[in-house]
Amino acid sequence: MRIDGKPFRSIWREAGSEAVKIIDQTRLPHAFEIISLSAVKQAARAIAGMHVRGAPLIGVTAAYGLALAMREDASDAHLEQACSLLGAARPTAINLQWALSAMRAPLSKLPQAERAAAAFARADAIAEEDIGLCQAIGRHGLELVRMAAASKKPGEPVNILTHCNAGWLATVDWGTATAPIYMAHEEGITLHVWASETRPRNQGALTAWELGQHGVPHTVVVDNAGGHLMQHGMVDIVIAGTDRTTATGDVCNKIGTYLKALAARDNGVPFYVAAPSPSIDFSICDGLAGIPIETRSEAEVTQVTGLAADGKIDAVRVAPLGSKAANFGFDVTPARLVTGLVTERGVIAASREAIAKTFPERTAKV
Amino acid sequence: MRIDGKPFRSIWREAGSEAVKIIDQTRLPHAFEIISLSAVKQAARAIAGMHVRGAPLIGVTAAYGLALAMREDASDAHLEQACSLLGAARPTAINLQWALSAMRAPLSKLPQAERAAAAFARADAIAEEDIGLCQAIGRHGLELVRMAAASKKPGEPVNILTHCNAGWLATVDWGTATAPIYMAHEEGITLHVWASETRPRNQGALTAWELGQHGVPHTVVVDNAGGHLMQHGMVDIVIAGTDRTTATGDVCNKIGTYLKALAARDNGVPFYVAAPSPSIDFSICDGLAGIPIETRSEAEVTQVTGLAADGKIDAVRVAPLGSKAANFGFDVTPARLVTGLVTERGVIAASREAIAKTFPERTAKV
Repeated sequence: MRIDGKPFRSIWREAGSEAVKIIDQTRLPHAFEIISLSAVKQAARAIAGMHVRGAPLIGVTAAYGLALAMREDASDAHLEQACSLLGAARPTAINLQWALSAMRAPLSKLPQAERAAAAFARADAIAEEDIGLCQAIGRHGLELVRMAAASKKPGEPVNILTHCNAGWLATVDWGTATAPIYMAHEEGITLHVWASETRPRNQGALTAWELGQHGVPHTVVVDNAGGHLMQHGMVDIVIAGTDRTTATGDVCNKIGTYLKALAARDNGVPFYVAAPSPSIDFSICDGLAGIPIETRSEAEVTQVTGLAADGKIDAVRVAPLGSKAANFGFDVTPARLVTGLVTERGVIAASREAIAKTFPERTAKV
Repeated sequence: MRIDGKPFRSIWREAGSEAVKIIDQTRLPHAFEIISLSAVKQAARAIAGMHVRGAPLIGVTAAYGLALAMREDASDAHLEQACSLLGAARPTAINLQWALSAMRAPLSKLPQAERAAAAFARADAIAEEDIGLCQAIGRHGLELVRMAAASKKPGEPVNILTHCNAGWLATVDWGTATAPIYMAHEEGITLHVWASETRPRNQGALTAWELGQHGVPHTVVVDNAGGHLMQHGMVDIVIAGTDRTTATGDVCNKIGTYLKALAARDNGVPFYVAAPSPSIDFSICDGLAGIPIETRSEAEVTQVTGLAADGKIDAVRVAPLGSKAANFGFDVTPARLVTGLVTERGVIAASREAIAKTFPERTAKV
C-alpha cells in the first residue's frame, strides 16, 4: 500500500542491499522510521520489542531472520540456535512457530553453502503467499462492499467500521480486514471508515494512519462509540480481523470485538470477519471455553503512549496511582453473531459445516 | 465520603470562612487540590472549566454562585447578571438551569439586605436535598447488592461493573450509581468494582480514585473489556448512571453505556441504572429519536491527558496527525435492556407504567 504516495510493504529486501527492512511500528503513527535488519539477533529483537506486530508479519520476519542467520553461519548448530532465539521472541504467535517449522527441516537437508540463498528464497515465498491470501480476501470482501454501495445514493459513502489493526501493517501488504477497503477504494467506490481506537494499545491509530497515507477517508472514534454509530445508521458493514477462529466459527480477536458484534446484531448491521485459513484452529470447537485469553501488563491500561508537546513519544498515567488494572488482550465473538467469514476461498457462514466444506483438506487432518 | 480517611463532600462551606470550597476535578485523580470560590465569576469559571462536573454538582455550584453574587451586590440588576453568567457556563446542564430558577424568583421578592443569607440557606438546602436523593438511591440499591451477596460463597465478592463517574464527585456526596456500593461496603459486604475507564475523558479514573480513597476494592479496565468480563461470570451486577431518562425508561448516559447493556443482556447479567427523579424527562418518550446527543471536541479523542513522568499533568496525541475524529458524548440504552431503575422511591421497571405510578405528581404535569 502507499505511504505518502509511494508503494510500501511492511517488510522488504532492497535490491543491492544485504539487509531486510521493516517499518518501526513502535514509532507509528507519530514517526515513520525504517529499521535495517542484518543479523538474526536484530530480527529477534524486532519481534520481541514489537517493532513488527501482527501474526502474519511476525511469521515473515522470523523467516527472514532465519535467512539472516544462515548468511552469518550456515552450520547446523547455528540453525538450531537461530530457531530457538526467534521462537522465543513472541512465544504465543502461532505464525512464528509455523514459519520456523516450514524452513528448518528443508534447510537442514541442504549443503551449508546453499542454505542462505535457499532461506532467503523461502522467506520471499512466504511473504508472497501472505500477500496472496490478503488479496484473495480483498477480492471476496470487495463484493460485499460493492453490494453495500449499490444500495446507496450516488456520492453517499459506504460506511465501514473496523476495530484494531487488521491492516497491511499487520501483514505484508493489503491487510485482512482492510484488503476489501483498499480494493473498493482503488475501484472508485465512495467509502468512509470508522477506525475504533482500540484501547489499551490504540492500534486503531495504526489503521487510521494506514488509511490516511493511502488516501482513504476515515474518522477515529473511541471504542465506546460503536453502538451509537450503529443505532443511528452510520455503519453499513463491520469488518474485523481474527487472531484465532474455531472450527465452528467462533472468532477470537482484539478485546472489544464482541461488543461491536452485539451492537451490529442489535441494529441489523452485517458483521464480517476477515479470516485467512491459517487463523482457523481446527482443534477447537468452543471458542469461549477453549481459547486461552492472553493477560497483558497493567501498565498498558494505566498508561497511554502518544506524541507529547515537545515532539517526543511519551507515556502519561491515566489511572490513579494505587488502583489496580486488568488487561485482557482478546475476547471471543460467538459464531451466532458473525454474519460471515471472508476467507481466501470466499465469504462463508461462520459454521462448522461451511468451514469444513471450504477447507476439506485441513478438516480431514484433525 | 472519605478521602485518605477524612470525610469530604464535593462542595462545602467552612465554618468561619466566607468562601465556598470545591475539589478541582480537572486535577484528579493525579493531584488533590481545593479551590476557594469567593465571587460569582469564580463559580462560573469553575463550572465552565469543568473544575466541577456532574449534573447535580453543577446545579449546587450554581446555587452557591448566586449566593456569592448576592453577597457582592444584592441588587436586582446583579441578580439578573449573575443568573445569565452562571446559566451560560454550561448551557446544556439541566440541573444548572433548574437551580437558578429555583433561587431567582424567591430571592427577587426579598429585601436586598436579606438576599445573601437567604441565598446561602437555599443553596445549602439544595445540597442537602441532593444528598438525600443519593442516600435514598443507595438504600434501595443496597438491597440489590445484598441479594447478589446472598448467592455468593462466604468471602467471595459481589462483582459490580460501573461506567463513567456517577460517583460522589458528580453529586455532593454518596453519588448515584456508587451510593449502593458505598452502603454495601459500610455494611461489610465483600465486594469488588470494575471501573470502566470511559474514553474519551476517562472519568473511570475518577471512580477508581473515589473508591480507592474510600477503601473499596476495585480494578480499572478498558471500555472494551466489559463483554469479556460478563462472558466469564466476572460481573454480578452492572450499575450505571443516567444523564437523562425518558418517561418510558430509555436511558441516555455516557457513550458506551449501551454496549455494556447489550453485553449484560447477552450474558444474563442484571443491568441497573441509578436514576434520581430529576434525571427523568417526562416530555420525551423515545430516547433514540428525542434526546439530542452532544458532540464534543475532536481533541478529547485524538489526545489523552494524564500524569507525565515529570509529575506534570499533560496531554499526548494518540491519533495520527491529519486524521479526523468524532466525539459523541452520550448514547441511549433502550428501556428493553434495562433490568430496573434505582430511584429515590425504590427499584422500578424501566417502563412508562412504572415510572408514572412512582412519580404521579410529575407525570400529571406533562
